[in-house]
Amino acid sequence: MQAEIITIGDEILIGQIVDSNSAFISKELNKIGVSVYQITSIQDDSDHILDALATAGKRSSVVIITGGLGPTKDDVTKHTLCQFFDDKLVQDDAVLEHIEELFKKYISTPISDLNRKQALVPSKATVLHNANGTAPGLWMKKGDTAYVSLPGVPFEMKYLIQDQVLPKIISEYDRPHIFHRTIMTYGMGESAIADKIENWEDNLPSFVKLAYLPNLGRVRLRLTAKGADKQSLVDAVETEIKKLYKLIGDIIYGEEEEGTIENQVGKLLVQKNMSLATAESFTGGKIAEQITAIPGASTYFKGSIVSYATEAKIELLEVPENLITEHSVVSEEVAKAMAKNVKCKLDTDFSIATTGNAGPTKGDSNADVGTVYIAISTPKRTFAQKFTMGNSRERIVQRSVNKAFELLLKEILNF
Amino acid sequence: MQAEIITIGDEILIGQIVDSNSAFISKELNKIGVSVYQITSIQDDSDHILDALATAGKRSSVVIITGGLGPTKDDVTKHTLCQFFDDKLVQDDAVLEHIEELFKKYISTPISDLNRKQALVPSKATVLHNANGTAPGLWMKKGDTAYVSLPGVPFEMKYLIQDQVLPKIISEYDRPHIFHRTIMTYGMGESAIADKIENWEDNLPSFVKLAYLPNLGRVRLRLTAKGADKQSLVDAVETEIKKLYKLIGDIIYGEEEEGTIENQVGKLLVQKNMSLATAESFTGGKIAEQITAIPGASTYFKGSIVSYATEAKIELLEVPENLITEHSVVSEEVAKAMAKNVKCKLDTDFSIATTGNAGPTKGDSNADVGTVYIAISTPKRTFAQKFTMGNSRERIVQRSVNKAFELLLKEILNF
Repeated sequence: MQAEIITIGDEILIGQIVDSNSAFISKELNKIGVSVYQITSIQDDSDHILDALATAGKRSSVVIITGGLGPTKDDVTKHTLCQFFDDKLVQDDAVLEHIEELFKKYISTPISDLNRKQALVPSKATVLHNANGTAPGLWMKKGDTAYVSLPGVPFEMKYLIQDQVLPKIISEYDRPHIFHRTIMTYGMGESAIADKIENWEDNLPSFVKLAYLPNLGRVRLRLTAKGADKQSLVDAVETEIKKLYKLIGDIIYGEEEEGTIENQVGKLLVQKNMSLATAESFTGGKIAEQITAIPGASTYFKGSIVSYATEAKIELLEVPENLITEHSVVSEEVAKAMAKNVKCKLDTDFSIATTGNAGPTKGDSNADVGTVYIAISTPKRTFAQKFTMGNSRERIVQRSVNKAFELLLKEILNF
Repeated sequence: MQAEIITIGDEILIGQIVDSNSAFISKELNKIGVSVYQITSIQDDSDHILDALATAGKRSSVVIITGGLGPTKDDVTKHTLCQFFDDKLVQDDAVLEHIEELFKKYISTPISDLNRKQALVPSKATVLHNANGTAPGLWMKKGDTAYVSLPGVPFEMKYLIQDQVLPKIISEYDRPHIFHRTIMTYGMGESAIADKIENWEDNLPSFVKLAYLPNLGRVRLRLTAKGADKQSLVDAVETEIKKLYKLIGDIIYGEEEEGTIENQVGKLLVQKNMSLATAESFTGGKIAEQITAIPGASTYFKGSIVSYATEAKIELLEVPENLITEHSVVSEEVAKAMAKNVKCKLDTDFSIATTGNAGPTKGDSNADVGTVYIAISTPKRTFAQKFTMGNSRERIVQRSVNKAFELLLKEILNF
């Protein structure tokens, strides 16, 4: 049982948007045991769409198509589907009623002929109700392959996948189980890890696959098991992971399925009924933003002082001016003072502080681009560490945010 | 002259990562006049890779392959390339020397056989030097098609594209010009815009294409022109855009090529020598983070007070407690007080403040999920507006951040 995804629209092919729709759909399909064999992004062009539909249908039982179902003229998908299925467009009254209702409720402009045209669907299609928008999803069959066409707007596509497409696949297809666990490591390169676990890797059961996923100073190790019996997959992966902890337990900081490291920080803080604040300079609020992206963060996160300018460190965080003059604004001492002061001001148990230079120029501090200090304050102590994070602004910030959460997690585990 | 991109690796097909590499490569290729015909994501599987290489080569002059060139065992790309080109791996001494040098400089673990194996390349390949990593890029020809294989680590791939691949394509291929401009609108739906500009759209020159790109309450209109003479493309698009401004100028807030709205805010503040601060509640630092992601933001951005908890609004922002009791923490009055106080504390010309409920529960305020207030304070006035942003946490935050920048931009334009 395998699926394919076809995304239609020039915006991906000219690099205007990143194809996050396919990542979402793939993840959801994997959860119900459907492997994705290929993702194909193509232009809004009839011949190309026809070719992609035919090719995908030869290989896969379900082909999910996103994009090209909007009301405007650059959308050719629906007409091409008619051509592919030798069908014609007919008006669906339920869809028309839904469109009229949405306009009455939410949209100030009057309903137009273009909007009404969205109620035209191929006569052979099963219509999938789109509660979040005016373009319906379409489910069509050719031979043994189901073709599912969805609008490209992420908010509408996500609803249709979760509420309409997945239940239909579950009810109509037998699927094997797929089970992933992903171990997150830090501080060791891909090849050094590979050397250490070579023997273990060579002896993995045949239905368990290992993948190395390196990024931004961390390597994730993903184990994937596939088979008919879910429990035996879970058990086999568990056994292998136990062996892995014996080999490289010192560089493992968690598992991706437990959530990101900031998720783990959050869970622990809730458990321990403890709280957190941040004082950010060059990370510019990104640590706070990643914390607050988690639903429920208000239970443990009080706030952040983003003291981007040196004067903000003095005014808002009350870092003593002479400390800055003496040690420079990018220094262990200033990082520690920021962490201590924000913890005190917001009366929290833990705090993170960052100060550094993310470039492109040397700025207030005269510190080299890439030099950063990360400070952690706990109920017991305050410390700061220096890091050199390379020379790309985006990387310096993201690696520092990652590192800050790592340092904090280790401390929280001790309480 | 067209290209294709093939990304290899299960992580995209299981939805573990979003394929941002392809978006980057597409954008860069477009800049030099190379259209991308298709992007294909496939598994680390020899047969599937062989099939994708052959199919892409039939259609396109350049096929760029990313992923599957790391040191570890899950990488099959290099061996599959040998099979496809009927070639064998040989050691490249320059690559080996480079790997040894990188290890000496940056990596604490000793060099291993796995690392040394990265110096093995197909004998027919032209090696592309990878200054940022140990896996070299490979350029191989079959018939008229060039196959370019690059490592999947974004930092290494980006360097290879910009410093090695693009110059080689420019020197070896004749290319047409491709020219894009993207108009950003707000406050009107896709179909209402389409109705208004129907006549204009029908009369576009044949070499100019229009696309509608709706997302998060905004519709972007992209004009693409393609042809041999760059200046005539630029002129034709300019003429059409002037007409477009006459039709819908009231809902246009800028052009994507000028940068995002926060980029435009930044440019204007630098020009006017004015400054900005933010006070964020439910947006959790995301406004500050988007501002500081721009190099040079320190010229105009002083900092942010992320007052996530109600007590932080009182402690850090000195919002009067009785104001909160009287009007609720999610109110026009509190939003305005936050904006005024942060502007005063950080002594800036402008400020943004947000307070609202992004869910999932009602929280401190008892305000409905999706209810938000955005306040702007300028040298002349402070005002707040109420919005209802739906019920998805991520969307509520991102739409509010977008809206805040829109409101601020309009104000800055008046100074």
